[in-house]
Amino acid sequence: MAFHLMQRDRNGAEKLAGALSDALQAVHHCVQCNNFTESKICELCTSERRDARLLCVIESPADLLMMEQTHAYRGLYFVLMGRLSPLDGIGPQEIRLDRLLDRASNGLTEEVILATNFTAEGEATAHAISELLRPKGLKVTRIARGVPVGGELEYVDSGTLAQALLERRPVSR
Amino acid sequence: MAFHLMQRDRNGAEKLAGALSDALQAVHHCVQCNNFTESKICELCTSERRDARLLCVIESPADLLMMEQTHAYRGLYFVLMGRLSPLDGIGPQEIRLDRLLDRASNGLTEEVILATNFTAEGEATAHAISELLRPKGLKVTRIARGVPVGGELEYVDSGTLAQALLERRPVSR
Repeated sequence: MAFHLMQRDRNGAEKLAGALSDALQAVHHCVQCNNFTESKICELCTSERRDARLLCVIESPADLLMMEQTHAYRGLYFVLMGRLSPLDGIGPQEIRLDRLLDRASNGLTEEVILATNFTAEGEATAHAISELLRPKGLKVTRIARGVPVGGELEYVDSGTLAQALLERRPVSR
Repeated sequence: MAFHLMQRDRNGAEKLAGALSDALQAVHHCVQCNNFTESKICELCTSERRDARLLCVIESPADLLMMEQTHAYRGLYFVLMGRLSPLDGIGPQEIRLDRLLDRASNGLTEEVILATNFTAEGEATAHAISELLRPKGLKVTRIARGVPVGGELEYVDSGTLAQALLERRPVSR
């Protein structure tokens, strides 16, 4: 991309430099959900159509987009902007779990949905957050782990199948 | 394979023909679990180390192997040898749901775990079986649907993510 800009699109390079520079000035973290925004509080947090009783904790802005694309969630978010990873020196301080605690203790939140990834770091992060929030009397839930929609047993790894079996649920009408 | 056998391995072809012919004679369905076996009742059904209170319903012998590879299941099985598929003319008669009903009503079974695939046919089959078994007072459960173990939200389809969100569960200690 750099070579293309230098050789064939020097105007474009100037525009890109300007846009990046403007973004650096304008974009910062929403004081409520920690996602990127140009205002003090982002549009999603100020929307009256969202259910303030639900707070979904996710690792990154990309995960927020994925959740929104499902059209299945009407609550609010908290974006960690990372995950616990002791080997990389990322502890509770670095992902600001204290801010999440403040956010979840605002009196409106009733349920915190942990939607961190099902990787080792994501699971450890979910565990740490649940340990942090449960003593505050908040309902803490985790998104389901199991066989993907459309999935066939024959092509699912045995770890996932074992979990799906362990976490089986009664069939409802 | 056929060309290889005809050109280079005519002895092998004869052996294969014999083996197939023997198998056709010897291998039939286990009267209890409907899986392939050479005896009247298969080894798994006669094993004393399996928990007779659990009955797991699966579509095919390959799925049984997958379940066994998880080392997470100690109960018994019922192999449907197919799934409901009205477009292909496969109804409850063809997959012998009456035999499953007999098998589940043996007085020992307490819980029937539906582990058919999460495809349209597999889901329809699970639904039909649960409608059939629930009036008999049996506990009917379904293996969990959700994000695979090791999965990241960013790479999961939105249908699966929506289901994982809907079927979220309280975090236990």
